[in-house]
Amino acid sequence: MKNKLHFPTSYNNRETKNKLFEKIQQERSHIGYYNLPNQKIDAILEYVETIDSSIETIAVIGIGGSSLGAKAVYQFLKPVKTPTRDLVFFESTDPLNIIATCSQMNLDKTHFLIISKSGTTVETIAVFKYVYAKLNSVKNYTFITDRDSALDQFAQKIEAKCFYLPESVGGRFSVLSVVGLLPLALCGVDIAALLAGAKNIKESFFGDGYIKETLLNKAIYYAKHHTKYNINCLFAYSETLTYFTEWYVQLWGESLGKKQRHSAFNVGVTPIGLIGPKDQHSFLQLIVEGTRDKSVTFIKIEDFQDELVIPDITLPYLEKLDVLNGVAFHDLITMQSDSVIEALMDQGDIPLDEIIIERVNEASIGQLIYYYELLTSLVGELIDVNTYDQPGVESGKIILKKKLNGGK
Amino acid sequence: MKNKLHFPTSYNNRETKNKLFEKIQQERSHIGYYNLPNQKIDAILEYVETIDSSIETIAVIGIGGSSLGAKAVYQFLKPVKTPTRDLVFFESTDPLNIIATCSQMNLDKTHFLIISKSGTTVETIAVFKYVYAKLNSVKNYTFITDRDSALDQFAQKIEAKCFYLPESVGGRFSVLSVVGLLPLALCGVDIAALLAGAKNIKESFFGDGYIKETLLNKAIYYAKHHTKYNINCLFAYSETLTYFTEWYVQLWGESLGKKQRHSAFNVGVTPIGLIGPKDQHSFLQLIVEGTRDKSVTFIKIEDFQDELVIPDITLPYLEKLDVLNGVAFHDLITMQSDSVIEALMDQGDIPLDEIIIERVNEASIGQLIYYYELLTSLVGELIDVNTYDQPGVESGKIILKKKLNGGK
Repeated sequence: MKNKLHFPTSYNNRETKNKLFEKIQQERSHIGYYNLPNQKIDAILEYVETIDSSIETIAVIGIGGSSLGAKAVYQFLKPVKTPTRDLVFFESTDPLNIIATCSQMNLDKTHFLIISKSGTTVETIAVFKYVYAKLNSVKNYTFITDRDSALDQFAQKIEAKCFYLPESVGGRFSVLSVVGLLPLALCGVDIAALLAGAKNIKESFFGDGYIKETLLNKAIYYAKHHTKYNINCLFAYSETLTYFTEWYVQLWGESLGKKQRHSAFNVGVTPIGLIGPKDQHSFLQLIVEGTRDKSVTFIKIEDFQDELVIPDITLPYLEKLDVLNGVAFHDLITMQSDSVIEALMDQGDIPLDEIIIERVNEASIGQLIYYYELLTSLVGELIDVNTYDQPGVESGKIILKKKLNGGK
Repeated sequence: MKNKLHFPTSYNNRETKNKLFEKIQQERSHIGYYNLPNQKIDAILEYVETIDSSIETIAVIGIGGSSLGAKAVYQFLKPVKTPTRDLVFFESTDPLNIIATCSQMNLDKTHFLIISKSGTTVETIAVFKYVYAKLNSVKNYTFITDRDSALDQFAQKIEAKCFYLPESVGGRFSVLSVVGLLPLALCGVDIAALLAGAKNIKESFFGDGYIKETLLNKAIYYAKHHTKYNINCLFAYSETLTYFTEWYVQLWGESLGKKQRHSAFNVGVTPIGLIGPKDQHSFLQLIVEGTRDKSVTFIKIEDFQDELVIPDITLPYLEKLDVLNGVAFHDLITMQSDSVIEALMDQGDIPLDEIIIERVNEASIGQLIYYYELLTSLVGELIDVNTYDQPGVESGKIILKKKLNGGK
C-alpha cells in the first residue's frame, strides 16, 4: 500500500505530531481494536471445520457494525476468489427485503450467525424471531455477542455455540474480531492473510515505518481544516470497493460526528463513498465546480490480476474511439482515475490524496481497514471527541420503546 | 404522495414565490423534461412486442444518466412485482465487474441496449466493443442516442434499431424518456402508470395543486440556507429505494454543484442517500450530534402491501423484547422512522421534512422522480446556476484523451 498526499504538510510541527502519537500510544492500553491483528484465530478456524459441508449459505442477522465489515471484505474478494459459500445479510426490518433475502437461500442448507454486541438490538432480534419460528431446528445457529448479554444467556439455554466480542472493541471497529472473521472464514476467506495485512499497517505506524508520518500529517490536515472541508469523499476506482466505502461511512460518521469533549460544539466530518469511473458521471461535477467543502481520497488498484482488453476493432463512424483499441481495461480505469486526479489538482484548492493498493486480496483489504481505523482515531483525538461512543442514537431508541409499549 | 415540511416557511414572501414560479414556467418552453409525462409511448410499446420471448435478460451498456434512472425504478419495483426479464447494467470499466456481469447472463438470450446521449461515451463504447466482438450476431442490439450522433450513424450502418433522446433532455433528466422507459418496458414495468405518477405531480405543481406551495417553500428554504446547510440527506425507510437515492445523488449533485452564473463563486448542496433503519446504525449519530450542516428528508412508505409479522414467541432471557411480538414488520419500520424524526425534531436546529408515498408501485416512483426533478430546477434557479449543464467534467475527459493518445 502506498499513500501520496497532495496537500501541504510541511508546516505541521514536530511537537504536535509527537503529542498526537503519544495519545494514540496511550489508547492502546484500553481500546481493544488496536491489538486485533495479533489475536489467535485457532478457535475460529477449528469451529469452521465443524460446520457441515452441506451448508451452502451463511446468513448474518446483524446490522451496522455487525454486518458492514464482513460484507465489505466478502464483496471485495468475490470477483477474484470464488467464495466457498454464499454470504447474505439480514440488515433491515423492511418486510420486502426480509422476504427477498429469504428467497435467495435454501433455509435447510443455511447456517445463521446472529450478531449483536448488546444482545438486544431490535432489528436483529425481530428478524431472528421470524427465522427461528420458521425453522424448527436449532442446530443451524451461532451467536456472537458480549459475554453475559441476554443473547449469550439465550444461546446457552438452547445449547448453541456463542462467541464473544473481545473487550473494548466497539461494533464499528469489530471487523477484525470474530464478528467479521467468523462469517468470512466460513466462506473460505483467508483470515490469517487479512490480519497480516492489518498487522503490516499496525507495525508500520507504531514502529516508525512509512505510514506513520503520512497518517499523522493527513489527520492533522483534516482536523485543522474540518470546518472548511467538512466533507471527505472516498473515491475508489473499482466496483469491488463499493461496500468498503459503506463500512468507511459508518466508521467515520459515527466516530467523528459528536459534541466535543471540552466544548458545547457539534463537530464532525461527513463521509461520502464514491466509485469510479461511475461517479465521474454523477458526483464529480459537484467536486470540480461546487462549494469548496470537500477533501477527496482516491483509492486505486495497482494490479487487477486480469488481462481483459478492448478488442482491436473499428466501428464505422466511431473511428475516433479507436484510441481505445488494444487497451487493457485495467489500464483504462487507471488512466481514468489519473485524469480526474490531474484535473482536480489543476483546481488548486481541493485537498487530495491517493491510496494505491497492490491487488484484490485479503492482505490489501486488511491494510485498508487498519489504515482507516487509525486515521479515524487520530482525527477523533485532534477534534476532541470520544471516537468510540455513539450517544446520539439513544434518544430515538427510547422513543421507539415507548411507541412499542403503546405510548404516543 | 404527501410532503410535510418541519421547518419554518411562513416568512417566505409571496413575490419571491411568484417570481420563482414564473421562471420555471418560462423554462418549460425550452427544457425538455417538463413535458415527458405527456409523451406518446406507442412506439416504445410496439417495439417491445417485437423482442423475442426467448430473451431473458436486458443488458444496458450505459453510465450515469443512461443507467441510474432505469435501475432505480427496476430495483424499487422488483420485490413486489416480479420482472418479466432480468435487467442488468454495464456501468464500469472495472475489468472484474465486466467479467462478473457477463457471468450473470446467458449471452445468447440477452438483448443489449447501448445508451449514450453523445454517442461517444468512453466507458460505453469500450464495453460495447468488448461485447460486440464476443457476440457475432447483430440482432440483439438496440441503441439510444442523440439523433445524428456517431452512434446513430453506426446503428444505421449495421441496420440496428435506434431510438433518439427527445430534444433538450439532459442525461440526468432522461429517466422518463425512452432512456428509462425502453429498458423498463422490456422487463414488464407499466410505463404508462409510471408516467401517470409523474403527471400527477406535474399537474399539481403547474395547476395550483397541493404540491406547488410545498415545493416552492422547500426550495426557497434550501436556497436561502445553502451555505449553512450545505448537505442534504435523503433518508428513505425501505431497501427498495437504495438505487433511487443514487439517482437523486446524480440529479442533485451534477445539477447544483456549479459556478454561479452571475458571480465567481462555487456553490452547491451535497446530496447523501441513506437507507433506514440500516443507517440508524451508521450515519445517524453524525446527524444528531455532528456539525449542523445537514437538512434531512425522510421518505416513508404508507402501505408495504405485506403482512409479515414478528412471531408471538418468547425467547428465554430476551423477554424484554416481547414488546415486538405480533408487530407487523411494516409497522415496526414506520415506528422506527417516526422515532428518529421525533428525536431529530427535539434537537430543534435540523431542518426536516417527510415525504410519504402510498405504496411500492409505478405511480409512486413516477411521483418521486418528477418531484425531485422539479425541486432541483427550483433550487438551481434560486442559487443562480445553470441546472442543466456539467462543464466541470470536461477537463478530466481532455486529459484522458491525451493519455490515450500516448501523451503524458
